[in-house]
Amino acid sequence: MIHFESDYTSGAHPKVLERLVATNCEHTAGYGCDDYTAHAKELIRKAINCDDAEVMFLVGGTQTNATAIDGILARHEGVLAAESGHIAVHESGAIEASGHKVLTLPHHDGKVRADDVEHFITEFYADETYQHMVAPGMLYISQPTEYGTIYTHAELKELSEVCHRHDIPMYIDGARMGYALAAEGADFTLEDIARLADVFYIGGTKLGTLFGEALVVTNRALLKNLFPLVKQHGALLAKGRLLGVQFEAMFTDGLYFEIGRKAVEQALRIREAFRAAGHEVVIESPTNQQFFHLSNDVIDRLRETVSFNYWGPRGATHSIVRFVTGWSTTKEDVDKLIETL
Amino acid sequence: MIHFESDYTSGAHPKVLERLVATNCEHTAGYGCDDYTAHAKELIRKAINCDDAEVMFLVGGTQTNATAIDGILARHEGVLAAESGHIAVHESGAIEASGHKVLTLPHHDGKVRADDVEHFITEFYADETYQHMVAPGMLYISQPTEYGTIYTHAELKELSEVCHRHDIPMYIDGARMGYALAAEGADFTLEDIARLADVFYIGGTKLGTLFGEALVVTNRALLKNLFPLVKQHGALLAKGRLLGVQFEAMFTDGLYFEIGRKAVEQALRIREAFRAAGHEVVIESPTNQQFFHLSNDVIDRLRETVSFNYWGPRGATHSIVRFVTGWSTTKEDVDKLIETL
Amino acid sequence: MIHFESDYTSGAHPKVLERLVATNCEHTAGYGCDDYTAHAKELIRKAINCDDAEVMFLVGGTQTNATAIDGILARHEGVLAAESGHIAVHESGAIEASGHKVLTLPHHDGKVRADDVEHFITEFYADETYQHMVAPGMLYISQPTEYGTIYTHAELKELSEVCHRHDIPMYIDGARMGYALAAEGADFTLEDIARLADVFYIGGTKLGTLFGEALVVTNRALLKNLFPLVKQHGALLAKGRLLGVQFEAMFTDGLYFEIGRKAVEQALRIREAFRAAGHEVVIESPTNQQFFHLSNDVIDRLRETVSFNYWGPRGATHSIVRFVTGWSTTKEDVDKLIETL
Amino acid sequence: MIHFESDYTSGAHPKVLERLVATNCEHTAGYGCDDYTAHAKELIRKAINCDDAEVMFLVGGTQTNATAIDGILARHEGVLAAESGHIAVHESGAIEASGHKVLTLPHHDGKVRADDVEHFITEFYADETYQHMVAPGMLYISQPTEYGTIYTHAELKELSEVCHRHDIPMYIDGARMGYALAAEGADFTLEDIARLADVFYIGGTKLGTLFGEALVVTNRALLKNLFPLVKQHGALLAKGRLLGVQFEAMFTDGLYFEIGRKAVEQALRIREAFRAAGHEVVIESPTNQQFFHLSNDVIDRLRETVSFNYWGPRGATHSIVRFVTGWSTTKEDVDKLIETL
Repeated sequence: MIHFESDYTSGAHPKVLERLVATNCEHTAGYGCDDYTAHAKELIRKAINCDDAEVMFLVGGTQTNATAIDGILARHEGVLAAESGHIAVHESGAIEASGHKVLTLPHHDGKVRADDVEHFITEFYADETYQHMVAPGMLYISQPTEYGTIYTHAELKELSEVCHRHDIPMYIDGARMGYALAAEGADFTLEDIARLADVFYIGGTKLGTLFGEALVVTNRALLKNLFPLVKQHGALLAKGRLLGVQFEAMFTDGLYFEIGRKAVEQALRIREAFRAAGHEVVIESPTNQQFFHLSNDVIDRLRETVSFNYWGPRGATHSIVRFVTGWSTTKEDVDKLIETL
Repeated sequence: MIHFESDYTSGAHPKVLERLVATNCEHTAGYGCDDYTAHAKELIRKAINCDDAEVMFLVGGTQTNATAIDGILARHEGVLAAESGHIAVHESGAIEASGHKVLTLPHHDGKVRADDVEHFITEFYADETYQHMVAPGMLYISQPTEYGTIYTHAELKELSEVCHRHDIPMYIDGARMGYALAAEGADFTLEDIARLADVFYIGGTKLGTLFGEALVVTNRALLKNLFPLVKQHGALLAKGRLLGVQFEAMFTDGLYFEIGRKAVEQALRIREAFRAAGHEVVIESPTNQQFFHLSNDVIDRLRETVSFNYWGPRGATHSIVRFVTGWSTTKEDVDKLIETL
Repeated sequence: MIHFESDYTSGAHPKVLERLVATNCEHTAGYGCDDYTAHAKELIRKAINCDDAEVMFLVGGTQTNATAIDGILARHEGVLAAESGHIAVHESGAIEASGHKVLTLPHHDGKVRADDVEHFITEFYADETYQHMVAPGMLYISQPTEYGTIYTHAELKELSEVCHRHDIPMYIDGARMGYALAAEGADFTLEDIARLADVFYIGGTKLGTLFGEALVVTNRALLKNLFPLVKQHGALLAKGRLLGVQFEAMFTDGLYFEIGRKAVEQALRIREAFRAAGHEVVIESPTNQQFFHLSNDVIDRLRETVSFNYWGPRGATHSIVRFVTGWSTTKEDVDKLIETL
Repeated sequence: MIHFESDYTSGAHPKVLERLVATNCEHTAGYGCDDYTAHAKELIRKAINCDDAEVMFLVGGTQTNATAIDGILARHEGVLAAESGHIAVHESGAIEASGHKVLTLPHHDGKVRADDVEHFITEFYADETYQHMVAPGMLYISQPTEYGTIYTHAELKELSEVCHRHDIPMYIDGARMGYALAAEGADFTLEDIARLADVFYIGGTKLGTLFGEALVVTNRALLKNLFPLVKQHGALLAKGRLLGVQFEAMFTDGLYFEIGRKAVEQALRIREAFRAAGHEVVIESPTNQQFFHLSNDVIDRLRETVSFNYWGPRGATHSIVRFVTGWSTTKEDVDKLIETL
């Protein structure tokens, strides 16, 4: 069986695991106050070319979003997000649980448009009753989006500008950031991301760590007391160095970027193979997630040797399915899939 | 100047005020533990023909919604509501502030359809990832709605059935309940409301008390500890008898219903006068709020002697305006308005 | 029967009620955006001699505390308070419900000592694990305290200094402020309160309004978005002018101060009469609440014609009782009580 | 350098790590919906001899406490705990952040007494104003406590009885449960814990997993929707099988119990060596944490070759220090320490 269900179904990239094993018996201070963590933070600051960014490692994406958003917003503010955004749909109300409304905007293949942000702030939230509404206090976007699509450099710039014109910060959920950076047509770097966003996170879990997300705060006035906030959100790992060790491995010799590149390369091969075989590509995704509209017959046949998931319910004759590549996807896996097609 | 801005711009109905004055110097127990409050509760239980309903008086609508919804929902649950619902738009995030998501449904002139509730529960909240979504834990509707429209008895019944089929309670925001009961074409009674809803409130503020809303819990298992919950929400009035005295007056000799009837009667006169004068009636509202599409010239001329509000922004040539009647609207006020037209 | 149960068992002072009646039929904008409210705010700014203080009227004390504290604190901070403080004991967890811990300090007849504040910040919250503790983000005191005692000007100054030395604001709960200002030995004015505190409130409910508390923010950077915050806490009154009208009456011709003075005068007569009759004065309270240790026989005899409450449980032979005076207490009431003794 | 700073300064027990490495490249379903997790749950159910207990794996202790307590309590309820309890002092207000007060009880070497629970419920929370107080909704204890002490079987039974007599559940924080089970004088089993508590957790992090705590719900009516609740609290691990794999290793061939036994054995050797050398044993701890009162000279000398922490601030001449053993402590480490003494 070859696997394309998701990018978090297997463990850690061998180089990451190797470092965890090599350092297992060492004794270090807890809660991220160790040298591995300090070094990993330093490596990330270099990768984004921003010496005074604050970096904090958390365990998972939902807790990272909830902690950062809760720390940034004032009590009467909410967070703008695409109606398809992860925080709007798939985090079991974690944002609301800390007291904040997710103010939804229309999405276009998962993406928010600067015009819609502008309209929300200057039209919707501008009538006489605005003080009875939730104030838009920040913008949340994901790069890549939940649909595998990416914002171009120009789009990011436009969003950043509309946010800063209205004095609200822009936050980027980078659970799969490595795949965006390696995307077909990607015209931005991690340094650009850091310059355009006020706060963002670099996802580890879906790129090849066992777990872990690196929250990066470039606009430091926004989040001044991260340590107790992270602890309060239950997101502080006792053996904190595990996060440092893993991100150190990821940002040594460009491993993080390499993982992204290889997985996207195979994903695009899959896309073109499906297209060549006459199947409908549902979303023109340039990243590691691919969506196809297939007849149930084809699905059933493929499933004999290939593992992948439905995207939504199974239809009467056709269904949409998702193929995802990750650090553990090999060229040989994809060769086999293509043969099977 | 004659006034049609809103139903909460003047004070209390004379009979309510008279009772407040008459009882002002008495000493009673605080926090609603007095005889006036007990009697008012009894009068409401009679009005809804439900002897064992719990009745609790709170000061305002937003706090009543927030308290009841917070008390009813489990931590992982949210409340279904029309995207135009008061809790979804105009309560500054009070529901989210207590930790719960407002799950929005499409609205039709302010109303939610039973089909959409059914679809949300059995389709949207039914895919593989449902455990990562906010669970629909109750339904919120307003009667009349924010658009002045009303649910018919059949519609209420259908909503009640879809809720109970899926084991979630139905809550009715009755900030303007008295106007719904008196609405043109209303085919339901307060007793029906009490039977179909699990929890609802009878609005005082907009019907002629200085302040005060009567929360009624017919499905008592849903809200077992109202007193400390109300206190925790900052909604417990020290001089609680003020609420009892006012609702006692409202439910003596049918005052509550009479106020609703008279106000709706005048509102419908206004509607027909505007229609007769060739103006566009924007929403076919059968209650005390009326919405018209007028040329700015007409608006400016009317405003010389009549006070009323825009509904949304002023347009280039035409705008939508709202006329609201209340306990203090007289036949003479409306005569004058009609003359002015 | 003469009444000494509490200062919120009767309605409004006649002058307050008179203004409510006189203005009842007027139409004004809702939510406190009316001229009465603007004028009342102006009167309070004059009374505290601080032109740019923000004043906001809320309905009750618990909601005022919860709203202000929630607005002032960052997410990881808690509020320091006496273990006997109202927010620590008698608000059903309203502070915690908005996410913040009440960090308790020892009390001395209801009062907090500056030394204990200093010790908490520089000793308790200063060990290696401090980042895992709740950060002290502000100080809450009540003036007078829940025991009827008052802080002297020197004590207030010392508390203010320790707070500002450690860069945390001082908040004063003034539910009964008028009685503190009129207290035996009071050596401070409302202007002093405003200068020493960063935020405080002037209680109306217990001084003679039907309801209402005036929140005053002199350090305006602390609470920048009061309107939506108040709305979110369910504390925004629709017919907001009722608060303006009442506080306008209270701050016209010194009514607020006069009510305090008269009530304290009678309370001290009661205290001395009990003392003269050989009864134990439990707390040396200089304000409108008096606490006595009486034999149950005396209690039972008094209760035939006088109404008052136990302070704690009834003992086997003796019990502690509380006598409270208020705007409605007359010299004649106290004469009668003294005769009965 | 030999290490006694804490039980979470090194990585995972070799047998746990070995399993993580062995399974690293497998593909499984995420979020704990895999066979390893199912098997680990089964092993725990066997270990506690309770077939229908619900078991859920979370990442860390603070999030486990916060999630469970938030799920168990009604909105108006708080959690009783020793004033020295971890949730009361060292979780950065995580309990309050989800809206609940920690109601503190006196502690005796970290332990709560059944009498104090009884007194709180029947005396303190029983006066006339009880509805204005936070209702005690559950009891939190830790076994062993933050002071290394343990509750005896009789004490646990007494606490369980007082809780159930007043219809509140008992929750046990078992961050170091394995050390309690192996404690000198321990007269209870994990099965006893499961029978006496309603909900508890078996700590992994401090016993030898990289991370992970096993929440066990024997009284299942208390926590019916764990999955979305855990997700909402940001505590759901994407690669959930990592928790299953680790706990499977821990509950295979009694590894969990063996780790506890060995660490306690060495801790007691340390205690007796210090005592024999004439040093003061501060708390008579029967578990893996030991507390001594040493002269600063001794401390400084020891620190040349031994790593351990102060317990509180360094004194002028003497200080309290803590020595902790764990899975990685060897007999040889302790031999060396004893020689050094």
